[in-house]
Formats: sequence, C-alpha cells, structure tokens
Amino acid sequence: VGKVVVLAGGVGGARFSLGVRAAFAPGASDGAATVTVVGNVGDDITLYGLRICPDLDTLLYTLGGGIDPEQGWGRDNEVFSVRAELAAYGETGWFTLGDRDIATHLLRTSWLASGLTLSEVTARLARRWRPGVRLVPASDQPVETHVELADGREVHFQEWWVRAHAAIPARRFRFHGAEAAQPAPAVLPALAEADLVLIAPSNPVVSVGAILAVPGIAAALHTTPAPVIGVSPIIGGAPVRGMADACLQAENVPTSAEAVARRYGCRREGGLLDGWLVDLRDRAAAEVLAKEGYRAAAVPLLMHDLDATTGMVRAAAALGATVRG
Amino acid sequence: VGKVVVLAGGVGGARFSLGVRAAFAPGASDGAATVTVVGNVGDDITLYGLRICPDLDTLLYTLGGGIDPEQGWGRDNEVFSVRAELAAYGETGWFTLGDRDIATHLLRTSWLASGLTLSEVTARLARRWRPGVRLVPASDQPVETHVELADGREVHFQEWWVRAHAAIPARRFRFHGAEAAQPAPAVLPALAEADLVLIAPSNPVVSVGAILAVPGIAAALHTTPAPVIGVSPIIGGAPVRGMADACLQAENVPTSAEAVARRYGCRREGGLLDGWLVDLRDRAAAEVLAKEGYRAAAVPLLMHDLDATTGMVRAAAALGATVRG
Repeated sequence: VGKVVVLAGGVGGARFSLGVRAAFAPGASDGAATVTVVGNVGDDITLYGLRICPDLDTLLYTLGGGIDPEQGWGRDNEVFSVRAELAAYGETGWFTLGDRDIATHLLRTSWLASGLTLSEVTARLARRWRPGVRLVPASDQPVETHVELADGREVHFQEWWVRAHAAIPARRFRFHGAEAAQPAPAVLPALAEADLVLIAPSNPVVSVGAILAVPGIAAALHTTPAPVIGVSPIIGGAPVRGMADACLQAENVPTSAEAVARRYGCRREGGLLDGWLVDLRDRAAAEVLAKEGYRAAAVPLLMHDLDATTGMVRAAAALGATVRG
Repeated sequence: VGKVVVLAGGVGGARFSLGVRAAFAPGASDGAATVTVVGNVGDDITLYGLRICPDLDTLLYTLGGGIDPEQGWGRDNEVFSVRAELAAYGETGWFTLGDRDIATHLLRTSWLASGLTLSEVTARLARRWRPGVRLVPASDQPVETHVELADGREVHFQEWWVRAHAAIPARRFRFHGAEAAQPAPAVLPALAEADLVLIAPSNPVVSVGAILAVPGIAAALHTTPAPVIGVSPIIGGAPVRGMADACLQAENVPTSAEAVARRYGCRREGGLLDGWLVDLRDRAAAEVLAKEGYRAAAVPLLMHDLDATTGMVRAAAALGATVRG
C-alpha cells in the first residue's frame, strides 16, 4: 500500500483520519503510504460574510492538534468575545462562532475573494496545521447540502442540524451546486492512483453523500483499481455519534450497519463497496453481507483512542488486501 | 439654534461631538438642538474581507460609551484572540483588529453585502450605541483616501498613517471614488436646514478633506443659510493629536491655526468659513484673520474633559450667532 485515499466528513472522519495517518506512518507495520483525505464541503456555509467549512476545519484542527478535544469540533481553548458582541447587537446566532475559529474563516474568506481556489486555501491553512496528510476538498465549487423539511420548507443543512438538532423530520436532501461542480483537481487523480480507498464512518447521507454528489467522484470510485472499503458509522442500530439516523429516515433506510452497506451498494453489482467493516456487535450483518458479495468483517469499531482507531484502519486495510489477492 | 450639523473625523471629531451633544442637550443653556454628525469615510478600508470604517466606529463607540478611553479609538476592554490566531497563521498585520471590534465589522460587512447602504448600516449599528446624535456617513459610496508618497508609490491612507506612522513624506492625497460618489441622503438636507454648521478640529486635509471631496458637500456649505464655524485642529503650531502636520506639509501649508483657516477659506470670498475658533495661544492669528473677514475668536481649545469641550462648542455657537446677527 503506497497511496491511500479517505472520503471523510467532520468529527468522525477526522478521528478516523488520525488512525489512517498512524496506520500508514513511516515505519508502520503495514508500510508507509501517502494519505489523501477528501473532505466534505456540503456543510459549508456563509455567515456574516465569513466562508465557513466545518468539515475541512475539523479535519485540519484534529490532524493539526488544535481541536477542542471534548466536543470534537472547533478550536481548543476557544473564547467568544465576538459572539458576545454580536449578541449585544441583538444578533443571537444559532451557529457558534469562536474567536480563534473566526481567524481561520477570515483568512479563507479573503483568500477566496482574492481568487484562490478552496483547494489552494486549504493547502495554505495546512501550512500552519501540518496535518500530515494531503487534505483536499471534494470540490472547489460550492456544494451546499440543503434539507427539505416535512412541512415543505427548505433550509441549509447547518440550520437543520445545528439549530433544530435534526429534530424536524427531513423529507430529502439536496446538494445545491452539485450539478455544476467538479471534483477538486487532486481528487480524481488520487482515486485513479490509489492502492486503497477508505470511506470513513461518516454520515453516509449528508457527509459522504455530498462528496459522492460531485459529478465524477462516484464514477472514479467505480473505476479505481484500488479496493474500496467502507467503515460502518452505525453500531448496533445507532449512529456512533451525530444524527445519521435522522438522515437515513428521510430515505427510509433502516439505521443498521447492513442497510448502510446496501445503500452504498456492492461494487460487483454496480455499487461502490468492495468491503464493509462493521462492529463486533453487527457480526450477523457481516455474515449476511458476505453472502451477497461484499468482503465483510466485524471488529471493534469504537474510536476510543488512537490505538483503537489505528486498529480499525488496519482491519480495513486487511479487508482491502483480500480483495486484491 | 434648532439644528446643528458637525463635519467630523475620528478621535478629535468624536470628542468634539460629545461636546456638541452636551451643549445642545435638552435643557442646555443654548437651547436644545438636533445634532447631525457627518462622519468621514475616507479612512475606510477592507481587510480580510471586513469592511472597516474607523471614523464612523470611533464616533459610535465614543458617543455610545464603548470607546477605549486611553487611546481614543477601538473598543474598551478589547481582547485580541483573532489577532493572535492570524499571527499563528503567519499573518502579522499592521492594522489592529480587536475581537470586539471585529463583531462590528462582521455585521457591517454582511449588512452591506445584503444590500443595505452604509447610512442604513450605520443607523442599525447606532440602535445599539444610541449615540444621541444622528450619525451619517459623508457618502454611501466608497471614498478611500490614498497617499502618493515622495517615491511615487501610492498606498491606502491607513497604510501610510498606521503602518508607516506618516513618517514617509507624502506628495499628495487622492480620494479614490470621490468623483463618482454622492453625499449620503441625509447630508445635503441637513446642511440646507441647518442653523449652525461646525467643522470639528479634525485633520483638515484627510478627514474633513475627504468629506469635502464628495461632490456637492462643499457647494452645500457655500449655500447653507447657517453660519459655518470651524475649530482649529492646530494649537500653537502643532496638531493637538494625530499627524496633521505631515498632511499639511504635502500641500505646503504651514502647521498653524491661521494657515488652516486660509486653507478652508473665508466664505465671503468664496471659501467655506464664516468663523474660526482658535486656542488662546493663537490669539494673534485670530486678530489677523478678523481683519481678513473671518469671525474669529480665541478660547481654550484643549478637550480635556466634557466641560471643556462643551465650552468650546458654546464659544463656536456664540461665534456663529455673531454671523447671524
């Protein structure tokens, strides 16, 4: 394994990427590999004129050691003077803007305004964070996930997720801008040259879903010579974190490791997955899926610490090796 | 006196405006008046995508009780997490951006982007600060003061003033955008209906100068029925604060109360001023100017405290009354 590509959302994708970096670090037992992390941009939003890319920032901060370790997103030792001032102006926003985080948004916004692409901006921000992987956005064009609610209203995903805590039933998700978007320049070459593609245990509908909504990325997964191994974000019938169940419900997909695998589909039958890694608790699902043509294995999937996460990644890589062999 | 208009720059203009507000408050000995402060926008600048209006902010913060009392600009109890983060990204800017101040810039920037005019944005910000005067920008269009340096380079005024501390000789000042700008909607009606127009002891070249560069404002000063009284920013041959001398030098105007009055010009001879208030130390200048047709008086001009400032304003109003009489 020399080149690994990860499709990743925010918190879960970032923690998983820590394990990928460790599993393929120089001197690792599986051998070193260069790692490209393709980050979801569907959660991106413009607030107060600031271009905010929550998942790319979570990836940068997590891999760069600047993340708030408790909540898994946002800066460590964050402070909120700007928010307090906005509140004094009567602007009590539902989106938390920390002062330290705002510096990142200011730079991104002004660099984008100066003509840099989101890929270039992300690379510049990475000069500080030194994530140890190549972090690229799924697309340099805006692709924003919107939610059509049961009452017919359509809101930005962040508004539904953060403001309403996904408590209002969703009818469907739309990826605004996706039709006109292209994969960021590094994405398709990375997939074409990959030795292993990993789908992080991120929200399959809105995080990985928004990546796959960029025209050309799903096709590149179909044609990559590398095995494509997914890691289940569902353990024992519930999302490990986040509210993926609320997203799956909108599609009438059961909240189970098995159903999410089927949603991605088996590559032999036109789907995306060669292999699917589930938690030990979902061993039965692995057995069922194995009969349907998936390479499937059950291992402990909780990302308690870096060792546990690295172990998960090694298990995914081992599953990939059986596809190759 | 029922309606007073003040032309004002930043720190000096804001302190002067405190005195105007007090001198014409309900129950004041001179009688109450509504006060319109026309603020300079020539210092405005866009940094990191934030639209910053230093003079309007200084006026709002000063009149609203939120100013840093030591430096006379910026927010009180300011903190600098964003600046520290920008520095961690390698962005060590010459322009100080405080966290609390940034909230104002974020709101202004996003409100402007949503289509509000600078007048409307300023009125919205004033809902919080309740400045007790009507604060209007000289223009809703960008008018940015640039400096042509002796070496031929041209830089934004802020870069010369803040970054270079006006230590590089200036050759001339240009008001970018002024030709295409119009006075903000409230400016010309306020001047036409005024009972008294005061020119604050602000920098005559770049603060008041940028206001007068907006087409129509100088003409409205010529035609207003109100007396136009200026207050000298120069005391005893030196600027009270700031570096007006460096600006006057570029025009070969001596740094004296007398020379600045002549630069504005006597209204009887096509200039702007009916009257000119100088400090006691410049009594000789007042006598010379009086012979040239100016109403002139010498009083203590230092704005030590609100009482001193209010006294200055009352002296200016008294000078105006002699014009009327």
